[in-house]
Amino acid sequence: MSKYISLKESCCEANRKLPELGIVDLTFGNVSVYDPEAAVFAIKPSGVDYSILKAVDIVVLDLEGKVVEGSLRPSSDTPTHRYLYRNFKSIQCVVHTHSRNATAFAQAGRAIPCLGTTHSDYFYGDVPVTRAMTPEEVAGEYEWETGKVIVESFQNIDPLAVSAVLVRWHAPFVWGYSWQKAIENAYALEIIAEMTQKSLSLNQKATSVPQYLLDKHYLRKHGSSAYYGQS
Amino acid sequence: MSKYISLKESCCEANRKLPELGIVDLTFGNVSVYDPEAAVFAIKPSGVDYSILKAVDIVVLDLEGKVVEGSLRPSSDTPTHRYLYRNFKSIQCVVHTHSRNATAFAQAGRAIPCLGTTHSDYFYGDVPVTRAMTPEEVAGEYEWETGKVIVESFQNIDPLAVSAVLVRWHAPFVWGYSWQKAIENAYALEIIAEMTQKSLSLNQKATSVPQYLLDKHYLRKHGSSAYYGQS
Amino acid sequence: MSKYISLKESCCEANRKLPELGIVDLTFGNVSVYDPEAAVFAIKPSGVDYSILKAVDIVVLDLEGKVVEGSLRPSSDTPTHRYLYRNFKSIQCVVHTHSRNATAFAQAGRAIPCLGTTHSDYFYGDVPVTRAMTPEEVAGEYEWETGKVIVESFQNIDPLAVSAVLVRWHAPFVWGYSWQKAIENAYALEIIAEMTQKSLSLNQKATSVPQYLLDKHYLRKHGSSAYYGQS
Amino acid sequence: MSKYISLKESCCEANRKLPELGIVDLTFGNVSVYDPEAAVFAIKPSGVDYSILKAVDIVVLDLEGKVVEGSLRPSSDTPTHRYLYRNFKSIQCVVHTHSRNATAFAQAGRAIPCLGTTHSDYFYGDVPVTRAMTPEEVAGEYEWETGKVIVESFQNIDPLAVSAVLVRWHAPFVWGYSWQKAIENAYALEIIAEMTQKSLSLNQKATSVPQYLLDKHYLRKHGSSAYYGQS
Repeated sequence: MSKYISLKESCCEANRKLPELGIVDLTFGNVSVYDPEAAVFAIKPSGVDYSILKAVDIVVLDLEGKVVEGSLRPSSDTPTHRYLYRNFKSIQCVVHTHSRNATAFAQAGRAIPCLGTTHSDYFYGDVPVTRAMTPEEVAGEYEWETGKVIVESFQNIDPLAVSAVLVRWHAPFVWGYSWQKAIENAYALEIIAEMTQKSLSLNQKATSVPQYLLDKHYLRKHGSSAYYGQS
Repeated sequence: MSKYISLKESCCEANRKLPELGIVDLTFGNVSVYDPEAAVFAIKPSGVDYSILKAVDIVVLDLEGKVVEGSLRPSSDTPTHRYLYRNFKSIQCVVHTHSRNATAFAQAGRAIPCLGTTHSDYFYGDVPVTRAMTPEEVAGEYEWETGKVIVESFQNIDPLAVSAVLVRWHAPFVWGYSWQKAIENAYALEIIAEMTQKSLSLNQKATSVPQYLLDKHYLRKHGSSAYYGQS
Repeated sequence: MSKYISLKESCCEANRKLPELGIVDLTFGNVSVYDPEAAVFAIKPSGVDYSILKAVDIVVLDLEGKVVEGSLRPSSDTPTHRYLYRNFKSIQCVVHTHSRNATAFAQAGRAIPCLGTTHSDYFYGDVPVTRAMTPEEVAGEYEWETGKVIVESFQNIDPLAVSAVLVRWHAPFVWGYSWQKAIENAYALEIIAEMTQKSLSLNQKATSVPQYLLDKHYLRKHGSSAYYGQS
Repeated sequence: MSKYISLKESCCEANRKLPELGIVDLTFGNVSVYDPEAAVFAIKPSGVDYSILKAVDIVVLDLEGKVVEGSLRPSSDTPTHRYLYRNFKSIQCVVHTHSRNATAFAQAGRAIPCLGTTHSDYFYGDVPVTRAMTPEEVAGEYEWETGKVIVESFQNIDPLAVSAVLVRWHAPFVWGYSWQKAIENAYALEIIAEMTQKSLSLNQKATSVPQYLLDKHYLRKHGSSAYYGQS
C-alpha cells in the first residue's frame, strides 16, 4: 500500500494535462508535485508516453534525490526539479515543457517582454532567459546545474511573482503554489509567447507595459487587494 | 422567479460561444447583453470557467452599476461595459476577449489597417487602437476609465460602422446591435487580424483598400442598399 | 421535380467541403458547379450557413444570368462565376474562399511565387494577383467586372495550367475541370500559401524553382506523359 | 498467400500515421519499410488516399527496383527510397512528407540550424539542405537522382546521427532504424522546424547550440551512455 498515493495521483493527472492543453509534443515534458509536509516530490518516469501513464508509474523522491517509492527511472530532469524545490520556497509543483512558442524565445535567447495585460495578469514582469551554461556545467551534473542557473536568474526576481523561466537554447520551466496553478501558468506562458512573437513581428520596437499598468493588472489578480474572481 | 431569465440565458449562451469559436483562452474574456427596455445588462461573473457557466450565475446590473440580480461578483471589466452602453447608443452586446491575433495588434500599439474586403465586409475602416492610459486613469477607476478612452477613440468614428477597438497594451472590445452580431464581429476581428498580420509580414508597406472599394463592400452588406444575404 | 437535382447535390456537397477543409470562415466563400451540356450552373445562395445548406436551397442560373431554378437569392459573387464560365472553356467548377493564407497574399498585393514542388504539382507557375480595379469598375457591375480583371490576368497564362488567381485586396478564386478537382485546388492553394509565406519569412530572396524542375513536377502529374497516381 | 504480409501491414500502418500526426496534406507523402533479411521494401502505391489505404494495396520491391508483390503502381518516389536503402546501411524505413514547416525551409534553401535541445535530442547537428539538382539530373532518372543528391549531402555526416534531409525546392526525407522511429523523427522534424522558424523571426542572428550542449543532449538519448527513458 502506497504512502504517497494521493501525491502520485495528482502528479499523474498533472502530467496528463500537458498533451490535453497542447503544450507538449512527443515526450518533451514532465511535471513534479511536491508535498511540503513529507518533504518529498513525485515525478514522471523518463520517456513514458502520457497516454499510458498511470499513478503507479510515478516515482517519489526526497530532496536528497533518494527514491522513496517507485520502480521506474525518474525523468532525466529530476535534479532540476529537486534544485528548484530546495531553493524556491513555497512552490509545490514544477512543470517543464518544450511548448512551441515559449521554446522559440528560449532558442532565440530572448526574454519574453511584458507587452500586455495578459502577461501582466500572470507574470509580474519579463519572463527571463538564463545565461548560457558553461562547458563545465554541462559536462558535470548537468540537470542539477540547470537548476542552479535558473535560481541564479532570480537573484532580483521573486519566483512567485514571475513563476517561469526560459533556459537558454532549451525550453521553459514553470512553477506554482499548487499543481493546478503551475499547469495554468505553463499554458498561459505559451499563449503569451505566441501573442508576443506576433506583436514583435508587427512592431520590432513594441514597448513594454508601463510599470503602473503592470502593477494594476498583477495586483488586481494577486495579493491582498485582489478583486478578480470570486472571493 | 427571475425577471431577467431570458436576458441571462442569452448572456450565458453568448459567453459559452467564446471558447467554442476559439477566441478565448483560460478566463480571458467576457460578454454582456443589454436590454434597452429595462435599461439593464447581464454580464459574466468574474473568473468563472466557461464550461461550467450557467444562466443562474449571470449577474444583472443597471446603468448606474447597481446589481439588480445575482449573487456572484460580476466581471472586473463591468464598468467598461457599462460605460459603453451609456455612450454607444443602440448597441446591445459588448464582447471582450484576448483573442490572440487581435491582441497582438493591441500589444504592438498598431491599429488594424483595412487591407482587404474581408475587413471591409465587417468594419468600415481601420480598427483603432486607443491612446495609452495615464497613471491617474489606471490608478483611479481603471475599468471605467478604460471605457472612456475607448469612447474618446470614436470621436470621429461611428461605433456601429466600426464596432471594435483595441485597447493599448490590452486587447479588443467588440460590440453589436445583437449578441449574435457582436459575437460574429469578435470572431471576424480575430480572423482579419490573423490575415492582416500575415499580409504585413509579406509586405510591410501593404496599402489599405481604396475608399471606393471599402464603400462598395461595406455597403453591399450594410444599410438600405445592401444586397448580400437573403432579404 | 427538379431537372437539375444532381447538379444541385454536387454543388451542395462541394460547398459543404469548404468548412470541413478549414478553408472558409463564417460565410466567406461559395462554390458553383457548371453543367456544360445544359449550359447552366448551380451556386450557393447568398449568406446561408454551410451547416444548414441543403441541395434544395441551391440556385441554378444560365450563362445570361437568368435564374432557371431556385427561390433564394444567389451568392452576390454570381456574376464573377458566370464571367469565368463564359471565358475559361472546359472548367466545370469555381470555388471562391477567403482562406487565410491565400488571402494574406491578395491583401499584400503579391502573387504567390512558385517556390517548390508542392506548388509545381498543382499550379504551373506563379499564382497571379490581379491589378487594382478602378473606381468605375467597382461602382459599376462590380462582380461582373471582377470576372473581367481575372480573365485579363490570364492573357498569357493557360487557366487550366494555373487554375487560381488572387483578386487584389480581396481573396482567391480557384477552378477545375470537376468540382472535386476545384476543391482540391483550393485546398492545395491554401497549404502552398502557408508554406510560401513561411519560406519568405525565412528568406526574403528565396528563388523560384527553375523552369526545368517546374516542368518535371507539373508534367509528372498532368498531361499525356503523367506517371503519378494509378492509370 | 502473401510472403510479405507483416512487412506490408507495417508499411500500411506507418503510412496511415502521417495524416494522424498532421504531417501530410492531400497525398503529399509516402513511407516505405525495409526488410533487411529479404532485401525487399514495401511502399505506398502512388496517389492513393491514406484513409482508404489497405495492406493489400502496398507494393513490395527488391533493391533492383523489381516489383515482387502488388498490382498497383508504387509511389513515384520509389527510386529515391531504393537509392537510400542501398546507400544508408542499417536504416529500415524512409518517410517522405511535405510537412509545412520543414518544407518551408526546403523552399527557402536553408538548412535547419540546431538552435536548441529539442533539435539536439533528435538530430546531431543541422538538418542539411541538398544542392540544386541540375537540368540533366531532373530530365534523367529524376527520383533516382534525388536519392543521389541526398547521399551526396551526407559525405561528412552520419545518416544515423542526422536522420533527415531537406531536398532543395522540394521537401524533407527522413529515416530511422525502425518504422516507428522514422515516423517519430519525421514528426519531431516538423515541430523543430516550426520552433526554429519562430526563433529566427525573433532573432535573425540566433546562434546554434554550442557543441558541448549538442553532445550532451544527443548522447543523453543515444549511444552506450544514454540515460534517457527506461532501460
